[in-house]
Amino acid sequence: MRAIEPIPQSMQAAVLHAYDGKPESLRVEARPVPRPARGQVLVKMTAAPINPSDLMFLKGLYGILKPLPVVPGWEGAGRVVATGDDWLSRMLLGKRVACAAPNQRDGTWAEYMLTAATRCVPLSDSVSDEQGAMLIVNPLTAWALMDITRQGGHSAFVQTAAASALGRMLLRLSQHFGIEGIHLVRREEQAQLLRSMGARFVLNSEAPDFDAQLHAVCHQLNATIAFEAVSGMTALRVLQAMPEGSRLVLYGALSESPLMADPRDLIFQRKRIEGFWLADWLVGRSVWQQLRLGRQVQRALGDLLRSEVAARYPLSAVHCALTDYQASMTAGKRLLVMGS
Amino acid sequence: MRAIEPIPQSMQAAVLHAYDGKPESLRVEARPVPRPARGQVLVKMTAAPINPSDLMFLKGLYGILKPLPVVPGWEGAGRVVATGDDWLSRMLLGKRVACAAPNQRDGTWAEYMLTAATRCVPLSDSVSDEQGAMLIVNPLTAWALMDITRQGGHSAFVQTAAASALGRMLLRLSQHFGIEGIHLVRREEQAQLLRSMGARFVLNSEAPDFDAQLHAVCHQLNATIAFEAVSGMTALRVLQAMPEGSRLVLYGALSESPLMADPRDLIFQRKRIEGFWLADWLVGRSVWQQLRLGRQVQRALGDLLRSEVAARYPLSAVHCALTDYQASMTAGKRLLVMGS
Repeated sequence: MRAIEPIPQSMQAAVLHAYDGKPESLRVEARPVPRPARGQVLVKMTAAPINPSDLMFLKGLYGILKPLPVVPGWEGAGRVVATGDDWLSRMLLGKRVACAAPNQRDGTWAEYMLTAATRCVPLSDSVSDEQGAMLIVNPLTAWALMDITRQGGHSAFVQTAAASALGRMLLRLSQHFGIEGIHLVRREEQAQLLRSMGARFVLNSEAPDFDAQLHAVCHQLNATIAFEAVSGMTALRVLQAMPEGSRLVLYGALSESPLMADPRDLIFQRKRIEGFWLADWLVGRSVWQQLRLGRQVQRALGDLLRSEVAARYPLSAVHCALTDYQASMTAGKRLLVMGS
Repeated sequence: MRAIEPIPQSMQAAVLHAYDGKPESLRVEARPVPRPARGQVLVKMTAAPINPSDLMFLKGLYGILKPLPVVPGWEGAGRVVATGDDWLSRMLLGKRVACAAPNQRDGTWAEYMLTAATRCVPLSDSVSDEQGAMLIVNPLTAWALMDITRQGGHSAFVQTAAASALGRMLLRLSQHFGIEGIHLVRREEQAQLLRSMGARFVLNSEAPDFDAQLHAVCHQLNATIAFEAVSGMTALRVLQAMPEGSRLVLYGALSESPLMADPRDLIFQRKRIEGFWLADWLVGRSVWQQLRLGRQVQRALGDLLRSEVAARYPLSAVHCALTDYQASMTAGKRLLVMGS
């Protein structure tokens, strides 16, 4: 192990003891600080956001169940203070990085996190730790979805949960690349927010004529791909409204319900359903593509891919942060700030 | 128009007046005999089967709604007695053919049907009108599904509703081509029937440990494609049991319910859902591929692709035929026999 400062034996961390979504199952407590082996880095965390995928993880509804007890948190930022004794890891020693949690061990809601060197993106000086902490999950996903739209030759797309942090990034990217989007929300103030950002096609799924309107605008714009984060009947309604041969790409399940689809859309209209998971998409890129992507996304963090921070909380107030976030996700991100 | 015999002004036909599935909405009555234009042939029908897709059509649940009143029936056989005055149609004059109904007009449950010359397959002498009447929907679909399995490099497949006429054809084809199948049924006598045909992996979805068994055998055989005809929760259970990256191909919806799927299978396991419709699949083949296919399938009608006929009915007894078929679809096909 190489280190740039003394590493303590113990740290504070939010620790999950059961996948039941109960507040008492998540406790802030002392936990040993792990030591990096070959290919690994120890990140002294400075900030970590709460994302929808974290909420799903706490309830055991995320696609990955880690052995319990475990520290939640899929992404964050900090400084690499110790590394394994290999070339790639040592390159990161002392660097500020955005980092993703390992798939089977402790995550970012802690003072320190051990992860693979390959799961870190060195941060440019122009990117703050706060924005860097939110570099991976939303900006990279938004970038990937736009890439899928452009590679697939789709001239327009539909997105649900369009007022989310990710939805707003996708809106800005689509404006940048000149691709039309149809943005679906569930509340009028969300619709107004998106219209104030310049969105031209915003529909409220609670409106009585929603299905007819969505059908009309999907066919008018030839929107043949949908990015769907709600699941349940929302997926069915979106796919039903789209032209023949359309693709629905599911990347979330905010309704916590099984996806539904009308068999006739699949059989007679050649419509297809697939999923999107950022980790899989990244595996499909080469190391050089990933490095280039990291630079592109960091340059766009200031505008196209910026995240609004609604509030900051110390790690000890993780429950307040979770409660506030669930009460209004549209208001912006809640950040856990470590060592503050 | 060219004709080989006098064409009457009027005929008997089963005529559907409402898509409500009520017996009184389907009436046997007189209907004018249409005259073929360019590219069309008039088939004097001899036999037409009842398929699951016909039952869906009568209830308005099939993907295509024709303007009412309309003659149901998607396939059948007969002799071409009149044609339009063009080369292709005239080639068929006097020939025995298997024929598919047009997508927007009257179908096969009548004494005569007008259809496109391109929707007819000339029958070899070795194929009876009865077997010819069942050449298109089930044999071609079974052939197509096996082709999709082989082209996709899948070493094993799952199929639901495996005791259906189509399911049994797919079983025989898979035995012929040395591809392993996992056959799902809902009743023990169906399981026994398939085992008596040599099926090695037959599971009853009503068994208490069905999901665990299906998961085990799907992973053991690496069954990465499923042909699903039930929809609803059946689709969810099948997709959930299959290995990462699997495809579910929906070709029917016997449960008359929306398809359901676990979002985690789509997002984290790269599983995909698509539909299959024979008409689309055929459009993807050239005329020469279709002709070759017609010959291959006719050669196999005697064994691999044979349909068991449970009973024959005159057109006037169409209601009895429908009632019997719905009471026990596994028993075999019910044929409407015209001019008898």
